[in-house]
Amino acid sequence: MATKIDVGVLGATGAVGQRFVQLLDGHPLFRVAELAASDRSAGKPYREACTWRLPGQPPRDVAELTVGTCDAPFRSRLLFSGLDSSVAGEVEDLLAARGHAVVSNARNHRLDPDVPLLIPEVNPRHLDALDVQRRRTGGGYIVTNPNCGVVGLALALAPLQAAFGLEAVAVVTLQALSGAGYPGVASLDAVDNVIPYIGGGEEEKLELEPRRILGRFADGRFELADFAVSASVHRVAVTDGHTLAVFVRTRQRADPDEAVRALQAFRGEPQERRLPSAPERPLHVLFEPDRPQPRLDREREGGMAVSVGRVRADGLFGLKLEALVHNTIRGAAGAAILNAELLHARGLLP
Amino acid sequence: MATKIDVGVLGATGAVGQRFVQLLDGHPLFRVAELAASDRSAGKPYREACTWRLPGQPPRDVAELTVGTCDAPFRSRLLFSGLDSSVAGEVEDLLAARGHAVVSNARNHRLDPDVPLLIPEVNPRHLDALDVQRRRTGGGYIVTNPNCGVVGLALALAPLQAAFGLEAVAVVTLQALSGAGYPGVASLDAVDNVIPYIGGGEEEKLELEPRRILGRFADGRFELADFAVSASVHRVAVTDGHTLAVFVRTRQRADPDEAVRALQAFRGEPQERRLPSAPERPLHVLFEPDRPQPRLDREREGGMAVSVGRVRADGLFGLKLEALVHNTIRGAAGAAILNAELLHARGLLP
Amino acid sequence: MATKIDVGVLGATGAVGQRFVQLLDGHPLFRVAELAASDRSAGKPYREACTWRLPGQPPRDVAELTVGTCDAPFRSRLLFSGLDSSVAGEVEDLLAARGHAVVSNARNHRLDPDVPLLIPEVNPRHLDALDVQRRRTGGGYIVTNPNCGVVGLALALAPLQAAFGLEAVAVVTLQALSGAGYPGVASLDAVDNVIPYIGGGEEEKLELEPRRILGRFADGRFELADFAVSASVHRVAVTDGHTLAVFVRTRQRADPDEAVRALQAFRGEPQERRLPSAPERPLHVLFEPDRPQPRLDREREGGMAVSVGRVRADGLFGLKLEALVHNTIRGAAGAAILNAELLHARGLLP
Amino acid sequence: MATKIDVGVLGATGAVGQRFVQLLDGHPLFRVAELAASDRSAGKPYREACTWRLPGQPPRDVAELTVGTCDAPFRSRLLFSGLDSSVAGEVEDLLAARGHAVVSNARNHRLDPDVPLLIPEVNPRHLDALDVQRRRTGGGYIVTNPNCGVVGLALALAPLQAAFGLEAVAVVTLQALSGAGYPGVASLDAVDNVIPYIGGGEEEKLELEPRRILGRFADGRFELADFAVSASVHRVAVTDGHTLAVFVRTRQRADPDEAVRALQAFRGEPQERRLPSAPERPLHVLFEPDRPQPRLDREREGGMAVSVGRVRADGLFGLKLEALVHNTIRGAAGAAILNAELLHARGLLP
Repeated sequence: MATKIDVGVLGATGAVGQRFVQLLDGHPLFRVAELAASDRSAGKPYREACTWRLPGQPPRDVAELTVGTCDAPFRSRLLFSGLDSSVAGEVEDLLAARGHAVVSNARNHRLDPDVPLLIPEVNPRHLDALDVQRRRTGGGYIVTNPNCGVVGLALALAPLQAAFGLEAVAVVTLQALSGAGYPGVASLDAVDNVIPYIGGGEEEKLELEPRRILGRFADGRFELADFAVSASVHRVAVTDGHTLAVFVRTRQRADPDEAVRALQAFRGEPQERRLPSAPERPLHVLFEPDRPQPRLDREREGGMAVSVGRVRADGLFGLKLEALVHNTIRGAAGAAILNAELLHARGLLP
Repeated sequence: MATKIDVGVLGATGAVGQRFVQLLDGHPLFRVAELAASDRSAGKPYREACTWRLPGQPPRDVAELTVGTCDAPFRSRLLFSGLDSSVAGEVEDLLAARGHAVVSNARNHRLDPDVPLLIPEVNPRHLDALDVQRRRTGGGYIVTNPNCGVVGLALALAPLQAAFGLEAVAVVTLQALSGAGYPGVASLDAVDNVIPYIGGGEEEKLELEPRRILGRFADGRFELADFAVSASVHRVAVTDGHTLAVFVRTRQRADPDEAVRALQAFRGEPQERRLPSAPERPLHVLFEPDRPQPRLDREREGGMAVSVGRVRADGLFGLKLEALVHNTIRGAAGAAILNAELLHARGLLP
Repeated sequence: MATKIDVGVLGATGAVGQRFVQLLDGHPLFRVAELAASDRSAGKPYREACTWRLPGQPPRDVAELTVGTCDAPFRSRLLFSGLDSSVAGEVEDLLAARGHAVVSNARNHRLDPDVPLLIPEVNPRHLDALDVQRRRTGGGYIVTNPNCGVVGLALALAPLQAAFGLEAVAVVTLQALSGAGYPGVASLDAVDNVIPYIGGGEEEKLELEPRRILGRFADGRFELADFAVSASVHRVAVTDGHTLAVFVRTRQRADPDEAVRALQAFRGEPQERRLPSAPERPLHVLFEPDRPQPRLDREREGGMAVSVGRVRADGLFGLKLEALVHNTIRGAAGAAILNAELLHARGLLP
Repeated sequence: MATKIDVGVLGATGAVGQRFVQLLDGHPLFRVAELAASDRSAGKPYREACTWRLPGQPPRDVAELTVGTCDAPFRSRLLFSGLDSSVAGEVEDLLAARGHAVVSNARNHRLDPDVPLLIPEVNPRHLDALDVQRRRTGGGYIVTNPNCGVVGLALALAPLQAAFGLEAVAVVTLQALSGAGYPGVASLDAVDNVIPYIGGGEEEKLELEPRRILGRFADGRFELADFAVSASVHRVAVTDGHTLAVFVRTRQRADPDEAVRALQAFRGEPQERRLPSAPERPLHVLFEPDRPQPRLDREREGGMAVSVGRVRADGLFGLKLEALVHNTIRGAAGAAILNAELLHARGLLP
């Protein structure tokens, strides 16, 4: 058995950081060797620094690691970043400049001109941008994954784009509480309630990031895909799992059966390469009239598969459907880990 | 003080029936004199026949009324129907034929060629259809109110139609549990969950009823308004209050400020006539970025005002906004009572 | 009509402060004339300083008042305190020393040797302590109301103590989210969850305050009532309304029917004096097997009545029952307002 | 690898039956070979007969089995019963008379004079009653597991009884929705609410079953343990996991540290025999002040470990603590499977 690759987790005590630690426990390629967080946590063992908010407890070996600061030197070449956007920008730049591969869930660098915004099944060719980026940094680099809701949307759109072309998309989200981190949303705002708003430019991200992801990297630069997206976001009383109501106008007419076939047939490089965190089928198409549902479907394939249901004809757009993505697994930490697995398989890790 | 008008409530033990009883308690024009429900309840005093699911208790005088069956003769000329659609069709026909004014919340007759589907602020002229209907029945008639979500949608669209014309509307709903009656949705389907489906043709109603309501009654028949609607519905863990995410393409360009002015200025016949259940302002436009919210806004003006918020520009449709309607008050029993108040004010009660 | 008494509200922007403002709107005796809060809010109009978390909006006239600081001079003789316990102690002392009647919901002075911990129906004689206190302060004074859960417990116990004597009480609480203020409990800790713990000495308060309230003030000092209380507290996903499962061992044997009669017959000075906020019946005894329930029963008599149900025989204690109290009305702001009404009726306001 | 033992599942389409199917998927000893349910389901493949309410889907091979009726002959010697109590009594008698080992979660036979009410860690000696029972039936037999809440209570009490003796216990439950099956509790009764009542004699079971379990089987009959239990039950908005607030008076004085040591040291025959479903530690003692919590702790050791927290001194009883049990795993299907594993290990399967 090959030696595992030591990795560091930045922002390790936060909501996304905890998911990194949980999902990397027992990972076949990577081993959590270093943890970093804010000054408040630095110097403490992880079990003390971190109020573990996931079921059960932190893995025993990680619990005993001492938390460091984000600007201290790291031995690990590969760093996962679950940093808050208030600090991620600068820290990730610094670490890339020091030669690390920074695989980040933060939004700060997602739209930088030479940073891949990566979903391995959808746009692995965007890794070509690393050539450009590494020339700039001298060797290290940043690779990002999209906003949690965008992962679900882009995965559901990718096969439709490939088969029929995309012209316009409207999406309304019903997003889980864990998307706001911890403590996040106040319980009095969540119980018996809906909040028709999410801060931090959530609608803008949903309108822009899918066009970047489904666009091309060519001639050394990214081109946005040529379709319009309109988004309207909501927070609902669900712990995990973002539901998306999606209206789609394709360039070529697609009836629901054709759309279903395209969605079901969808596979990508992670499936071909059998990456450890890759779901067998990135999209599960459900045919029961009342699915997908967060409580019943968010954990499919360990939370790495997106569920799509109610694919039906629409008088206004042509097609409409529901998509469900586990926001802190496929939509955050799991997305970044799959990105790192692809980097490893491609031989791109420093 | 004038004598109150005796009224009967059909389906009095159900969820909508209970709201009728609650809202008619202390009503200045109407007095609940008769109750009817299924055979199982008939012959019992209301307090025994009915498991009261609203806060507090049923009004004392109504609690002592004996529940009758729906096909027995009624003394009251005005009957409110909260009947289930499985029985409403036939029963309401029978009672109209007997000369009663049946003001119904059931869906069965909403689209009949001579039955008004009425929102008093929006389409009071549809009452002209009663001339046609009464010729058919010999005197009695049926007047219906729309599906709960449609009331919120049509009220929000009416001033935009008047000011700018409507071309296309997409609406995604986040509907309250009380919309499914009692026991309705199983708690295991509601807690920590979203159900992307509502039975009984909910999406079809949202796509058709607004066009009927916002259309004309002319030359003895109804014409659907000429705009397209696409709907996608969800059940969420909210007790009362349907939230609607609405995208609107108007015929004339409307910027958000103009739209807000049209929404705020909106008044109708119930406001002019100062009908007892009429809200002062049918539409409350909210400017906080995270409103309307069901828990905070559903009770505005006793649940009879619809709240509209987040009116903003949209790259795809031109406009988007959020609307909130109290589904069992403005969207059901309160809607029917307001309809009856208009019939009374117009001198149309038998 | 007599002129209303101007009052000030301390901590006016917080959760309890907002309830004060809401409940005092249209009050027949009192008029909110002054508002105070932290330095952060001072100098702003209330509508700006306060993020209103109750349904609807703050009363129009109060919304325009400028918020002051708590140590500035007040014109109003009567001050309601919804201050956080981190600051209430000192501020309330200062204001009493300046001659104000401070009617407080804060816990700081509840057990002071000359401060009444008052439930007007239960221990109005504890107001005798004001003679002692006013000698100390020179005229002003502090009167407190109990912890939210304690109000429900003490009201349910008072008639049992009077009729049968009390020996031991065990109480397990299922407390509402609003008891923790805003933002309070994180939504991820509330949805699909129970937290078996409440900070700030909640169990200790439940074990001590009822004995103070049900004890005597004699010979210039308070005596704790001679019975034991054991408490175990929980936070549940309820917006408002604390549920208490209570086991009671009385000194004289009491069967459930006798207990019910004692509970139903219970009235106090607020009922005799017909104080404006007094419920007609402080205790509503419910006989349905599954009541009281927060959603259905918390609003009884405007939230000022405590509901008691499931009064039944118990093999271990003799009696057990369920009690429900609206924690932010009868258990907080409403409790303080009723205290002030009693002070007014007794001619004790400065 | 040894051949697996074919088993049947009775009531296979219900909530407990689905858990049996889920937990037996991949079981090292047992293989689901037969399914039975009501006449309505009989003759259909399981995937059609059953609306699967657990996350994901039913195991593929079981999904294709044809559902039979409960009174038809079974090939499998071992039958798991998740039948509703309305039919379980007679059916289980019949099947035991036919020579089957019926391992049942139903309440009907729990207190029969020769039927073990078994928790393998607590009272394995109660299996001695099978000698008596088999003489009666001629070979087949029934073994039952306790009510869901009782499993948690009895497991937490067992080491305290062994170490200190038990005198009196008061327990207040906050029970999960899944305990009521599906559709079970109406969502309008669950959201923003607590129901202080559970039908079917829930309190009586909690007061009686622990005394049976912790009592002896001697001289051919069961003796109830000599301590009193009082229970008060509640339904709360939690999907899975019953929380119990427990007060305990021991015969010998036990301080919290001693109690914790007894709880932590607790092991039983399933642990010694390393039964496949046995948790390593039946009781997890938690020291964080706000634990156990359903969402964070119910899945410990696959839902087979009971969590105990807040072990503290109590002025009234001596000790109090919180316990949490996964009601449909350790409290139902998992309990029965562990029972069957013990029967197998003891060579008691027919």
